[in-house]
Amino acid sequence: MKNIYTFRVVWGDTDAAGIVFYPNFYRWMDQASHELLRSAGFPVAKLQSDEKIITPLLEAFCQFKSPLLYDDEVAVHSEVVEVNNKVFKIKHTFKKGDQVVAEGHEVRAWTSVAEDRPKAVPVPEHVKNILLS
Amino acid sequence: MKNIYTFRVVWGDTDAAGIVFYPNFYRWMDQASHELLRSAGFPVAKLQSDEKIITPLLEAFCQFKSPLLYDDEVAVHSEVVEVNNKVFKIKHTFKKGDQVVAEGHEVRAWTSVAEDRPKAVPVPEHVKNILLS
Amino acid sequence: MKNIYTFRVVWGDTDAAGIVFYPNFYRWMDQASHELLRSAGFPVAKLQSDEKIITPLLEAFCQFKSPLLYDDEVAVHSEVVEVNNKVFKIKHTFKKGDQVVAEGHEVRAWTSVAEDRPKAVPVPEHVKNILLS
Amino acid sequence: MKNIYTFRVVWGDTDAAGIVFYPNFYRWMDQASHELLRSAGFPVAKLQSDEKIITPLLEAFCQFKSPLLYDDEVAVHSEVVEVNNKVFKIKHTFKKGDQVVAEGHEVRAWTSVAEDRPKAVPVPEHVKNILLS
Repeated sequence: MKNIYTFRVVWGDTDAAGIVFYPNFYRWMDQASHELLRSAGFPVAKLQSDEKIITPLLEAFCQFKSPLLYDDEVAVHSEVVEVNNKVFKIKHTFKKGDQVVAEGHEVRAWTSVAEDRPKAVPVPEHVKNILLS
Repeated sequence: MKNIYTFRVVWGDTDAAGIVFYPNFYRWMDQASHELLRSAGFPVAKLQSDEKIITPLLEAFCQFKSPLLYDDEVAVHSEVVEVNNKVFKIKHTFKKGDQVVAEGHEVRAWTSVAEDRPKAVPVPEHVKNILLS
Repeated sequence: MKNIYTFRVVWGDTDAAGIVFYPNFYRWMDQASHELLRSAGFPVAKLQSDEKIITPLLEAFCQFKSPLLYDDEVAVHSEVVEVNNKVFKIKHTFKKGDQVVAEGHEVRAWTSVAEDRPKAVPVPEHVKNILLS
Repeated sequence: MKNIYTFRVVWGDTDAAGIVFYPNFYRWMDQASHELLRSAGFPVAKLQSDEKIITPLLEAFCQFKSPLLYDDEVAVHSEVVEVNNKVFKIKHTFKKGDQVVAEGHEVRAWTSVAEDRPKAVPVPEHVKNILLS
């Protein structure tokens, strides 16, 4: 499953060095993952209300290759690259035109909130098939 | 009821003009109000768990007199200036040393979440007395 | 000059009450103003590089009528309602479908950075005409 | 060089799941690094004005072990664990009481802005000695 999430850098994303403040890249990875799940047929709001499933972060990483500036138009190419029992990994590539400006990943847990305490559970086979398709 | 909330401007608060991005002033007013309520004996978390009361915003205003820069040390002087049945108004004055850099206010509703739908309810007399003390 | 800026509420915009954290409305007013100026032929980046003009905030106000939730699609209707020598006022109306969820305004100063210190200067007549058209 | 940066989770840090929105951990790592450099005698503002040195991010990673909630008091233990010619690595451990809630690192480049284009330069020996002390 792949998806492309596009956005434009807004004024509040920048810092006093004139470039994007780096934690914003993780905000965009989060948004890109939400859009990826939506395009896979599992919008996060529906996952939670219908399936009692949330997908909290276990880890997130990003490498910054080139700074982003105000008004830059950016495309985040996202892809599920691994589904391993209860966790899955999404790779995100930030592109400005043809240039890769950052690359990162998120590892998320398929987590049931059906009971009192959230609990990681195996990704169902049909979901796994779609995510890895 | 008055309180002083102090903070230092951090890197992520600034924008490409080198000054604080203005929506952050509202984040700080929100934090200052939380600290004011805490100092009044009504920490927000306890209000919600014990009294089923939340205090959502009805309006917020701020006038910006002088820009804030990275590393500036700021004191927000907060004061409840009005309690009017179900709503109360908090005035916030941002000071950098002796200089007033911004002035604003929030109007919040005393809101019960005891039932299905949140509903504004009168501020109890003993709370009103403390807030206006 | 009017413009409509649309966005979808993302996960990070919400707070533990499940609704949008209110300072985000000011982020969106800022973005809506940037888009308004862009549509008026004065993109902020170009204003600064070519005309040495920035438009810092003097004040901002917002009234919150109905909470916004994750995934809500929102349209901000923005309009310059006043140009008064060196300052101008932009009114912003947040709509979710037909429902007005919030209304606010910003007052900004037409400010030259051509010299050492930023200095408010009169809005040029041709700009004023476009902004008020 | 080690430092401890403490903060309290504020309302705006949380999301609709009631826990901290994960990109905030990177904001806090950035702040913790600024405080580490300050305690090492190299406050970021002074580094830039006096030495024409900035320290942009090359990569950042964080593992999330336990969620943080509104009002949690957190200590970030930061330590420079590596200085390798032009880059240095800072490890950050987030603790809530005795519990490690998250662990991460940043890799930053020692970067001169003395000339037109920012350029990574070797960390001076005396700085390296202090950072690794």
